[in-house]
Parts: sequence; C-alpha cells; structure tokens
Amino acid sequence: MPELRQDLIAGHWVVVAEERAKRPNQFATRLQNPSLTPLRTGCPFCAGHEDETPPAIVSLPNENDWRVRVVSNKYPALEMTATTATSPAKPGFGAHEVIIESADHITRTAELSVDQLTDVVTVYRDRLAERKLDSRLAYGLIFKNVGPAAGASIEHLHSQLLATPMVPDVVQRELDGAERFFAQANCCVFCDLLKRETDEAVRVVETTERFAAICPYAGRFPYETWIVPRRHASHYEESVTGEDLQQLARLLRNVSTRLDNVLHTAPFDTNALAHYHWHIEIIPRVTTIAGFELGSGYFINSVSPEHAAADLREAAC
Amino acid sequence: MPELRQDLIAGHWVVVAEERAKRPNQFATRLQNPSLTPLRTGCPFCAGHEDETPPAIVSLPNENDWRVRVVSNKYPALEMTATTATSPAKPGFGAHEVIIESADHITRTAELSVDQLTDVVTVYRDRLAERKLDSRLAYGLIFKNVGPAAGASIEHLHSQLLATPMVPDVVQRELDGAERFFAQANCCVFCDLLKRETDEAVRVVETTERFAAICPYAGRFPYETWIVPRRHASHYEESVTGEDLQQLARLLRNVSTRLDNVLHTAPFDTNALAHYHWHIEIIPRVTTIAGFELGSGYFINSVSPEHAAADLREAAC
Repeated sequence: MPELRQDLIAGHWVVVAEERAKRPNQFATRLQNPSLTPLRTGCPFCAGHEDETPPAIVSLPNENDWRVRVVSNKYPALEMTATTATSPAKPGFGAHEVIIESADHITRTAELSVDQLTDVVTVYRDRLAERKLDSRLAYGLIFKNVGPAAGASIEHLHSQLLATPMVPDVVQRELDGAERFFAQANCCVFCDLLKRETDEAVRVVETTERFAAICPYAGRFPYETWIVPRRHASHYEESVTGEDLQQLARLLRNVSTRLDNVLHTAPFDTNALAHYHWHIEIIPRVTTIAGFELGSGYFINSVSPEHAAADLREAAC
Repeated sequence: MPELRQDLIAGHWVVVAEERAKRPNQFATRLQNPSLTPLRTGCPFCAGHEDETPPAIVSLPNENDWRVRVVSNKYPALEMTATTATSPAKPGFGAHEVIIESADHITRTAELSVDQLTDVVTVYRDRLAERKLDSRLAYGLIFKNVGPAAGASIEHLHSQLLATPMVPDVVQRELDGAERFFAQANCCVFCDLLKRETDEAVRVVETTERFAAICPYAGRFPYETWIVPRRHASHYEESVTGEDLQQLARLLRNVSTRLDNVLHTAPFDTNALAHYHWHIEIIPRVTTIAGFELGSGYFINSVSPEHAAADLREAAC
C-alpha cells in the first residue's frame, strides 16, 4: 500500500510506493538486449491486449472498438482504497489512471491525428470532471512522459491522471503567486503575460484564435513551451468546449515532438478564479536535473526563450 | 553574459546562460562514437593540462604538485563581473568555481583515498569561507554531479561551488521549516531527528563518533542518504575542525558510489542558527524526474528509506 510522507524540514511530500519498483521497463530491457523483438510485440496497451491491463474505466467510444481507453494504473502511486490518517505519514490515498491515447502502437504525439488528439484532450476533461465529484480529492494532475529520458516505462503513447488529497506544492506556489499579482494589478497574471507576449511577439511560437503557444520568459528548460487559452478561465474541465478541444489538439500536435506534457488546472474545490488561468507546460527532455537544480531549486537554461521561440517558429509542423 | 530571471507566477529563478550550451560533453561524444579513445586522453582536469582550464584560484598544496585544484568554471552560470540590477531580470551576478578532486584521472568518489577526500572537504570549507567575505553574496552551494545521468559533462571527478546573490528557494524552505519547528519545540529539527533515528536505528546507514549517515524518512529518491553532524552546527564553513573533516571524508567515501552530492549549509549573512543544521544530501541517480514530479513538486520513491538503509548497511564499504 503506498504511503504519503512529508519532510519535516523542507515540507515536500513523498509517495513511498514500493510496488512501483516491479514495473516492467521496456526501454531498459531493450537496452540490455538489443536483439529483442520490437516493443510493439506484446505491448499491453495495444488493442487486442485488453486483458493485460486492469479493466477499463472508460473506453471511447466503446470497449469493443476503442480509440482512447482509460484504466487504473497497475502499479499505482496512490490508491482509492487507502484510508486517510494523520500527518506526517498518511496512507497513499488518491487515484492513478492511465489514458491510452491510441489503439495502434503509436509512440510520438506528432504521429496522432488531430482527431485522435481531440479525443485525448476530451478524455482529460471528462476524467477531471469525474474525479472532481469526489470531495476527498483536492486536485487532479494530468501528465505525460514520452520516452525513457522523460521517465516513461512503456513506449505506447499514454497520459496519466493523478488525483491527490492535497493541492500539490508546485500548483500552490502558482496559485499564491497569481493571487499576489491579482491583488496588486487587479488583473490575472496570465492574461497580462499573454497581452505583453503577443504584442512583443519574440517569445511566441504560434497562436490560434483561442490559444497561444509561448516560450515563457523564465523558462526552466531549453525549449520549454506553454500552451495558454487566450480567454481567461481557471478550470480546464469546466471551461473547454468542442471547438476549444479541436484547436487545442491542433496546437498540441504542432509543438509536441519528444515531449513531456504537464497539464496544470485549478484545484477541484474552488469556484472559477479570477487570478488563476489553466495552461499546459511542455518540457522537452534535452537536459538533466543536476545537483545545482536539486540543491537550490534554481534552474540553468542554456537556450534563451527568445532563441527557442525563434527556432520553434521556423521549424516545420 | 548570464541573466537571472524570476517567473512571475511560480516565483522560481532561472539562470539563462547560453554560453553553457557550448560546453563539450564528453559522454555524448563517446556515445556517438564508441571507438574514440578513452576519456582520460586529453582530459582538461588531469595534471599536465593546467593550461586548458582558467588559472587556478587555489591549488592544494601548490600549483606545481597539486592534489586538489580550484578554477573558475569556463562556462559559468553566474559571473562576478555582472553588475546587479532590478528584478525580475538581473545580470547573472555570482561565482561559479570548479573543484578538481584529484590530479589523476579518477571518476568515482569511492576511488579517492580518505586523505584525498579529506583534502576535498577541507577545500569546500575554505572556498565557502572565502566567498562569504564578499557581502554581495548571500549563499554558497557546493554540489557534485557524477556521471552523465547526474548531469556531468566531464568525467574527471569534480565538485562545484555556486555562490549566489540570493538564498536559493530549496534552502529557504528548509530554513523556514526548521524555524517553525524550533518555535514550537524549542529544539533544532535535525537534532531531534538524529536522536529519534539513532534510537530507532531502522533508517541509519552508518554512524561515526561525530557523524551519522541516514536514509531520511521522507526521502525523495531511492537510496537518498544524508550525512549529518551529530553535534549541532548551522554553518559548515565555521564549525568543522581537522578531526571532523577526516571522519566526514571516511563516511562520505563509504556511502558514495555513483552519487550526486549536494552540500547544504546556512546562508552567509547569518550568525550561528539554533534552528538550522548543516548536512550533505547524497542522491543516487537511479530514477528520472518525470512529469508527475515536475508538475506537482511531489516525489514518488519506489524504495522505502527503511529498506534502503537495510540494503546500504549490508553492502560492503
């Protein structure tokens, strides 16, 4: 059973989940024995292998002919059966879902069609909305690791939803910073940033009518890119419509080669927030988080966001 | 010229340092062409290649026959010539030193003798004490990346000192947490933790008369190990004596195979702190920081600190 622990000194939370050490690692296995058959042979996420995963939570459009399929993580970091207890050690209560993004063995986001990606971002919305109904859960984080450098253990394209009983530290810091800015400027910090960035245009990668892709001014990683809705909205799951989902899918596809996607939305238990604005953070894994970053919390970025945006604008999509 | 930028939303600091993209990466070069000569051939950190680095800041015992040699980083993340300016964009003022740990081509901490490691931890103390004299610098972080998975670009064993004009976020969170604990318990949180851990003994790896190596209760990474002085002291550079340095070197050597070392000490401009306690964090790089960690600030650890400590106690050293 996973266990949530908080560090008394720095305050960070850790999920101790020893079951996860038993995960098969396709990439490591292939590295040890390059003569093995390709990873698509026997992939548990491909259509026809449904009995190798936990039962479907949702299949879109249906389990017999699915395009997107959601299952519980077989090696969960958090479990809904864990009961809550006292700090600093808590059983690891929460939900950990896997969103399989295609029935075929696809391994890169750019290989998905816009229609397939529209299905995927629709499922993000629906799963967040569903988990939000459970008042014991405070937050739902959608993230996607592509390739071994990003921490994926299975090659077949998939996202994950981790619903937690607390608002995660990184999100809380964003909420706090956004609230401070709002108190001073009477304006959402993201809306202000979008206006300045689209006026100045040096860190803009691409815009659509409803979304902008930008390299953030203080980006932590080379080619870090954020996708931000141009109209103010704090909760993804409550604000995106059919046309939004299509535009988002198209833009995601355009800026998503070898990527790690982290979807940040506002906590479940808040009403619409004037000061917070949902967004997607895309972090290509070209560098390593080294001792300096771990020790300080500062980041060193060797590609300026201005150069990154220029390179990305020129790149074909 | 490097530039310090702060994210308006989450508050994190980023050093934009495009010069660092020009660093030679020995590991990447060898991966592309495995038939290349070993990395020791033409290593700029080996004795006899002194003209390939910036001039020595310090050589121990002297430049003609050195055992430890300190130079400015050729591709600095921060520079002392940068002038300070207004937030949120500041020139990247600070110091970035490289501490070369041996004249011979040594690549693992465990290959150093206790005498060599004693020289190294002595140089840590002396460089921190020297940089502390500059009132424009708020903090000195010593860190060490070993191997490509930990972010090293050069194989020859070396540590780095990064002296910054602000106290880093991670250290500030530790200081804040420690101060809160002290206000409640009238006791240093590290002293309290050391007493409980050495009594209980399940997360202890090894103790000497003056130091303890433990796997912290809320360790973020498999086999994360901290080395903590058993007598209260907040500032490394002001408290360690000759016998301390020898015991520390011996203990470091025992727990340091394939490691990333992060040395945390209290900020420069504070007097001795009753609530803070210096320590070394050792983080083996066996897992990747993936989307969940980046998006939430939470960590998933698949080896409990209790099991990690038991494994490490049983391992030969």
